Amino acid sequence: MANRMGYQTILYQNRPWIVSSASAVGPREGKGPLADRFDLVAQSADFGQDSYEQAEAALLRESCRICLGKANLGEKSVDAMLGGDLLNQIMPSSLAARALKIPFLGMYGACSTMSEGLLVGGMLVDGGYASRVLCTAGSHYATAERQFRFPLEYGNQRTPASQWTVTGAGVVLLAAPGADSKPMACLTRACIGRIVDMGVTDANNMGAAMAPAAAATLCGYFDDTGDTPQQFDRIITGDLGSVGSGLLLEWCGRMGHPLPEERMMDCGLTIFDSAQDSHAGGSGCGCSAVVLSALILPKLQSGEWRRVLFMATGALLSPTTSMQGETIPGVAHAVVMEGVQ
Amino acid sequence: MANRMGYQTILYQNRPWIVSSASAVGPREGKGPLADRFDLVAQSADFGQDSYEQAEAALLRESCRICLGKANLGEKSVDAMLGGDLLNQIMPSSLAARALKIPFLGMYGACSTMSEGLLVGGMLVDGGYASRVLCTAGSHYATAERQFRFPLEYGNQRTPASQWTVTGAGVVLLAAPGADSKPMACLTRACIGRIVDMGVTDANNMGAAMAPAAAATLCGYFDDTGDTPQQFDRIITGDLGSVGSGLLLEWCGRMGHPLPEERMMDCGLTIFDSAQDSHAGGSGCGCSAVVLSALILPKLQSGEWRRVLFMATGALLSPTTSMQGETIPGVAHAVVMEGVQ
Repeated sequence: MANRMGYQTILYQNRPWIVSSASAVGPREGKGPLADRFDLVAQSADFGQDSYEQAEAALLRESCRICLGKANLGEKSVDAMLGGDLLNQIMPSSLAARALKIPFLGMYGACSTMSEGLLVGGMLVDGGYASRVLCTAGSHYATAERQFRFPLEYGNQRTPASQWTVTGAGVVLLAAPGADSKPMACLTRACIGRIVDMGVTDANNMGAAMAPAAAATLCGYFDDTGDTPQQFDRIITGDLGSVGSGLLLEWCGRMGHPLPEERMMDCGLTIFDSAQDSHAGGSGCGCSAVVLSALILPKLQSGEWRRVLFMATGALLSPTTSMQGETIPGVAHAVVMEGVQ
Repeated sequence: MANRMGYQTILYQNRPWIVSSASAVGPREGKGPLADRFDLVAQSADFGQDSYEQAEAALLRESCRICLGKANLGEKSVDAMLGGDLLNQIMPSSLAARALKIPFLGMYGACSTMSEGLLVGGMLVDGGYASRVLCTAGSHYATAERQFRFPLEYGNQRTPASQWTVTGAGVVLLAAPGADSKPMACLTRACIGRIVDMGVTDANNMGAAMAPAAAATLCGYFDDTGDTPQQFDRIITGDLGSVGSGLLLEWCGRMGHPLPEERMMDCGLTIFDSAQDSHAGGSGCGCSAVVLSALILPKLQSGEWRRVLFMATGALLSPTTSMQGETIPGVAHAVVMEGVQ
């Protein structure tokens, strides 16, 4: 095959452009270390909506509109929207797509959704099936807590390994090269993840559940391509947090691909500072999506970074199957992004 | 763009092959009019598993194995698995993908999942990003009732417009042309659906919620391509049921694309017979997936049909947003399949 390397790695020979991005976050994220970099910071967690679910949908919708606005494009210029979130039946994404009226393909990869959308959206653009594709992912602390753990009113105590679901939506606009103004970066490769489950059952320790899948995708990518970790300015994971990030180093070392700690970055460890008491770090589909838009893409655009591997990681956890005693499968998809100078 | 027609239609210039398919269903489906056509009929709704959720996952997993077995291929020969189901966090699909160890992209389009997976999988193969892709969709009556309506033990009375969620999993193996033995059919075009919501709030009337989206996709396809309904042996909808199928005719007529009734077929009206008391018909991701595998593809393979449009339809319904007063958005994705004689 022309566009494939090894077992699970895809080549984007036409190098689809990332022409615009946007991020919209909640008040807590707006007080963190990336505060000044977000396009929109909601003044309240309900974002003026009747429910947190509607707030999550509104953050997604508005970040899409901001992203298109930056590129000076209307909704009608976009051929497809690919996105998802953590809520049952990905309702916030569906409600956002309903408002935007863009042909919509729903994705579900838990917190790996942003890289899943980029991976598939990259093929749509690279293969000439679409000229512009919006890739989206979002999450909301209050809706995720209600659905996966406890309603906030219950006031449960958080365990040390637990992570804090980011309230926010991140959006990236992909386009065929040359179609628009100078891009922020381009996509060159991607690696589709396999589901890996090492038997973790603690729903408050997502990092441990996701790390083996992240290691499998990363080592799979290195095996397929012959790349080394040193060829990346950063290897960026979605939301492994402090527990999972440590485990990733351990797993990759054991699997023959030791990772250079100074080149590693985790979005979950980037979005909050330690004073914000988020325990093992941030999480949620929105975590890696907003950090991608607010921090990673600008650094590729400025030339500070030339090449990064962006790998959002997902814990495929359902309260129903967890209560039935099922373990937590993990998945991670990787996308290689390069600067366009 | 080379591979695009009009606003939302995709061209598969390399005509990806459908080389194999399989279906596994529950006991009720195994007593319906397609009984003899399914590859596996479970003798009990729990399929020997500890929970209905695990039974749903096992039906998916086994139908994948049967599909690969028919093509004389192992799991390692498949580059990607694309699939989804109705359950929260698409757990049955994730558990099936965990067992098969195939790189996995989770889809969510409610009951439109089978055509969503084929649409995206078709691009993977057509664009040379994968040589073989498994597209899967499944559902289970007991898990869907528990999640979306009431546990079965409650014994609620069903309304006349309600549909019966199919217990079953359908799987299709796509491959690059020439890669394997003679195909059952090939993919030639697809149409990505927009989300359409005409304000239906009755969670027991999915057909009415989905029909406007189905009409939008179908008319969009006709507008993009210049095709007429008469150019298809069958225009096949997923699970509009009796209520939604009538509404589709009405909508398309009003939108300037009158549909010939004798060429229309709905999988939800095909899988059960009237004596089975399923009210408005079958539904669920698995409904169109098992009818595709058991009935539609064999008819394309035999030459009885030469060209069909397969459009699974989804009601993007969440109990949470429904309880909050939200209406039910619908979506439909279409795939054109042709015989290879």
